[in-house]
Amino acid sequence: MLSMDDIKVALQITSTSEEFNKSIMARGLKFPDLTCVPLPLGWFGPEEEGRRIAKVECFVNQGTPNFYMRPVEGLVVIVDIDNRNILRVLDPGGGIPVPKAENTDYRHQAQNKPSKMQPVNPISIEQPQGPSFTVEDGHIVRWANWIFHLKADQRAGMVISKAMVQDSETGAFRSVVMYKGFASELFVPHMDCSQNWYFKSFMDAGEFGLGAMALALVPLNDCPRYSYYMDGVFVYADGRPYIQPNMICIFEKYAGDIGWRHSELPGNGFEIREARPKITLVARMAASVGNYDYIFDWEFQMDGLIRVQVSLSGMLMVKGTPYENPNQVPSNVEMSTPLVSENVLGVVHDHFITFHLDMDIDGSNNSFVNINLVKEENLGGQSPRKSILKAKRQVAKNEEDARIKLKLYDPFEFHFINPSRFSRLGNPTGYKLVPRATAASLLDLDDPPQLRAAFTNNEIWVTPYNRSEQWAGGFLVYQSKGEDTLAVWSDRNRPIENKDIVLWYTLGFHHVPCQEDFPVMPTVSSSFDLKPVNFFETNPILGVMPNFEKDPPICWASTSQWPSTQQLNPPFCIEYA
Amino acid sequence: MLSMDDIKVALQITSTSEEFNKSIMARGLKFPDLTCVPLPLGWFGPEEEGRRIAKVECFVNQGTPNFYMRPVEGLVVIVDIDNRNILRVLDPGGGIPVPKAENTDYRHQAQNKPSKMQPVNPISIEQPQGPSFTVEDGHIVRWANWIFHLKADQRAGMVISKAMVQDSETGAFRSVVMYKGFASELFVPHMDCSQNWYFKSFMDAGEFGLGAMALALVPLNDCPRYSYYMDGVFVYADGRPYIQPNMICIFEKYAGDIGWRHSELPGNGFEIREARPKITLVARMAASVGNYDYIFDWEFQMDGLIRVQVSLSGMLMVKGTPYENPNQVPSNVEMSTPLVSENVLGVVHDHFITFHLDMDIDGSNNSFVNINLVKEENLGGQSPRKSILKAKRQVAKNEEDARIKLKLYDPFEFHFINPSRFSRLGNPTGYKLVPRATAASLLDLDDPPQLRAAFTNNEIWVTPYNRSEQWAGGFLVYQSKGEDTLAVWSDRNRPIENKDIVLWYTLGFHHVPCQEDFPVMPTVSSSFDLKPVNFFETNPILGVMPNFEKDPPICWASTSQWPSTQQLNPPFCIEYA
Repeated sequence: MLSMDDIKVALQITSTSEEFNKSIMARGLKFPDLTCVPLPLGWFGPEEEGRRIAKVECFVNQGTPNFYMRPVEGLVVIVDIDNRNILRVLDPGGGIPVPKAENTDYRHQAQNKPSKMQPVNPISIEQPQGPSFTVEDGHIVRWANWIFHLKADQRAGMVISKAMVQDSETGAFRSVVMYKGFASELFVPHMDCSQNWYFKSFMDAGEFGLGAMALALVPLNDCPRYSYYMDGVFVYADGRPYIQPNMICIFEKYAGDIGWRHSELPGNGFEIREARPKITLVARMAASVGNYDYIFDWEFQMDGLIRVQVSLSGMLMVKGTPYENPNQVPSNVEMSTPLVSENVLGVVHDHFITFHLDMDIDGSNNSFVNINLVKEENLGGQSPRKSILKAKRQVAKNEEDARIKLKLYDPFEFHFINPSRFSRLGNPTGYKLVPRATAASLLDLDDPPQLRAAFTNNEIWVTPYNRSEQWAGGFLVYQSKGEDTLAVWSDRNRPIENKDIVLWYTLGFHHVPCQEDFPVMPTVSSSFDLKPVNFFETNPILGVMPNFEKDPPICWASTSQWPSTQQLNPPFCIEYA
Repeated sequence: MLSMDDIKVALQITSTSEEFNKSIMARGLKFPDLTCVPLPLGWFGPEEEGRRIAKVECFVNQGTPNFYMRPVEGLVVIVDIDNRNILRVLDPGGGIPVPKAENTDYRHQAQNKPSKMQPVNPISIEQPQGPSFTVEDGHIVRWANWIFHLKADQRAGMVISKAMVQDSETGAFRSVVMYKGFASELFVPHMDCSQNWYFKSFMDAGEFGLGAMALALVPLNDCPRYSYYMDGVFVYADGRPYIQPNMICIFEKYAGDIGWRHSELPGNGFEIREARPKITLVARMAASVGNYDYIFDWEFQMDGLIRVQVSLSGMLMVKGTPYENPNQVPSNVEMSTPLVSENVLGVVHDHFITFHLDMDIDGSNNSFVNINLVKEENLGGQSPRKSILKAKRQVAKNEEDARIKLKLYDPFEFHFINPSRFSRLGNPTGYKLVPRATAASLLDLDDPPQLRAAFTNNEIWVTPYNRSEQWAGGFLVYQSKGEDTLAVWSDRNRPIENKDIVLWYTLGFHHVPCQEDFPVMPTVSSSFDLKPVNFFETNPILGVMPNFEKDPPICWASTSQWPSTQQLNPPFCIEYA
């Protein structure tokens, strides 16, 4: 990885370069006004062979801590980290102004205009009797019907292992739903082929470390009240250990949502209004990989579902431009990159987060089953219908059968089953992967960034367990050439039926920036689910208790301001003061 | 629609039929043991022409209020509602047992086995100073930077109109983000072509009415504390008005999520830990259309985003089968329909909810723009890259340009812009539709159910505003032939550029049932977003206040049980007692 020491070396060498300092001065800037950032350069050819290189770019931090919005566009210093020398300084010269500092500071202390919107009253998730989870030995989390091991990891950020859920009939912990799950790699290709942009296709887990970049969470803002915070214990490049404090939070989540419900129409002879609140447990971390912030949530539901959510916030990687307004762009210049502020372009880019999910449904030997929804048109003339969908099962025999590109018009379900363990009814026990909104990589398969990130060539892969196959982009990612990726391993086309198998799923985002992403981006989220399918005998949350009015919390409520002018009908606010 | 009076008539005629009673008795059943349900039959041919027909099916309610799990399989009574006579009784005879009542009652009072999972402590969204929204004149909701009109509607359920959001710079309410938004139709084709199943392709908004089926919400379980409940005022078939009490709830939602965040690495010279809580406003209703429960959420975010979520719960429409176990199925019988309990099949089906979204971005004349992410491969040899994605804009001229089937590998963004209103930078102001997880209808276009629901032939349509085009399946849906659908209107291919235009988006679900869906389904959700894109000058939630430790709530916390055995680090539980 690019260690903190590497970063320091790259910056120190840069600062002493005469050529670099000349470039900076020619722009009317001084080194102390700059925040410079060494970037991984991927791999594009033999000249990068045999040495560890970083490309240093600089930003102006005068007048704002949000230097990311003030690039010194075009200037790139290519540094050989190990040999501690400068290979080249690229400087196409001036012409592109440094964007202004105005309106870029996002800190609370810097907001000097009053917000135009009506402020909201305090709101909080309250648990007067405390949370219901426990953390044993610093790592073993127990909650409701779940138990799992949670670990902070320098590279993956968070690792969930031995996630087990209670059988709804017997109460026994079923071993194991997921043996190990973590974010294996994060690939971020930017869509600009110019000299100082083409290489910006980062692999943040392997090049920086998601845990290494996961700073302390902010109580009450990153995580709700009653969160439990966990530290990471990591290692510097020289072997010394250090603590990454409060980098994971664990909390119970209640959003007013519904676990299940049914009302019966009165005409049917039953007066039924049944509903159950949905309460879940979340383990969260946030990696600030330079400009971007990635929030990872592992959410455990009482119905056995595991939801893995990734949210994006932080700052765009922006590009300086001479234009302040689209109307200034000459008609012969194509502007497919959106202007997000004066002299600031938001470069189009993707985010792909590839998860390693070692599923062990009731034991290690599992099979991967495609349930394809196939249209059947030849209905034999017996029916007025011309077409129906049928669910057809196909067990994947080898890795090739499990390389899947998702398609809306060719829908599949993706099941992990234990072919030796059956429900009371005789269905094999299983879990399914439920993709939700996602994006696929569209780059050429032989484009160098895509070669290195060939693990995004498909959205789904299944491999037999191999302890050396943990990191989708390879164990050593920095300047890798793609010789050790998931795609290479899968090419061996090993058998995967009734074996200890690993699911790889890539969650993707396309991001075409807009003004609202400036100077800091409102959070965007997506997720996927691991969901029980014939794993439980019946709905496992049938016995979940409803909320009753007599339940705590007992809160002091000041209703003096409210409801004052409106006519509000009860039931409305239930108070026990 | 099939009115309550129609339903009564159909049941009354059925009960008096000698043939029907003979069939029932031949099965050892009596009419009082049954709950019978008249179902819409769609349209399949001329024999259904010129008369209003319902197909009555029956279920055994002995020993359970969950009669839906106990079908009298095969028996269908075809009733002419207006002429009040029976057209036919279909009875293939016995052979399929009525599934057992055991384990089907989902009510809290019927849970006699203690739940195996560790109960969770009380948890609640608390607002000691009360909610921050107001409801004026019974319908006008104001909250944070939003104002909109909310109405209960007998057919659509909820109608949002004149949704306006404050400009983040001036504080002025921008008129209008959405002139009118509602669920226009809900299409549920079941995938079984047999005699008593082929017609089960319901259009619940037009055949029953989503509002008519939306019963009172259950406080603290369907909606959190501090919810405001709104009634509907509807009309019986004979013109008398009635009140549907507490059918909508409005509440502020806080799930511990993050509005935006950024942490700065210490090495970059700034000590920054900024994060903001995400608080939203939700308007919710739940339609219990017979067995199924559909929960509709309109969620308004401070960043200008509107999220429309549909959640499914309630009961499957199940089919009786002679088999208790997959092993009993003879090898020559194809079983693509999953067994979810003994003698109970969960028939594969889809749900498509088509929304009418009359967008008026800063005024009524808008354009629909496809932003296609196109791979560009010919990079002119100047770059080591072989491919990048470019965002290409294409303004839709007419309706044909806006009929869109979503594709993961051909990604688009879908913008509504006001071509006459520009941001400070010169970008046209706009909103975009952000599809999330969805499903597409795969039925033949000339299959009768699909003809009637041709509005699901595409996921996206844009039409010029026409006051008669509100209901995607036509104004009169019961036994319609598809002669008045959105697909027919769109075929006129009218101009839509710089006009008052309406977006139609269909949110879809494929459902292959499993054991966990029995006897009542854990909630499954999906959603889509309407999101500002260059509508605000910058991130509109930059000024949102962080949470502080001194903020209320002030709750009485009993920590005697917790933390007892675990070593928990502060910050953990912040109490002000």
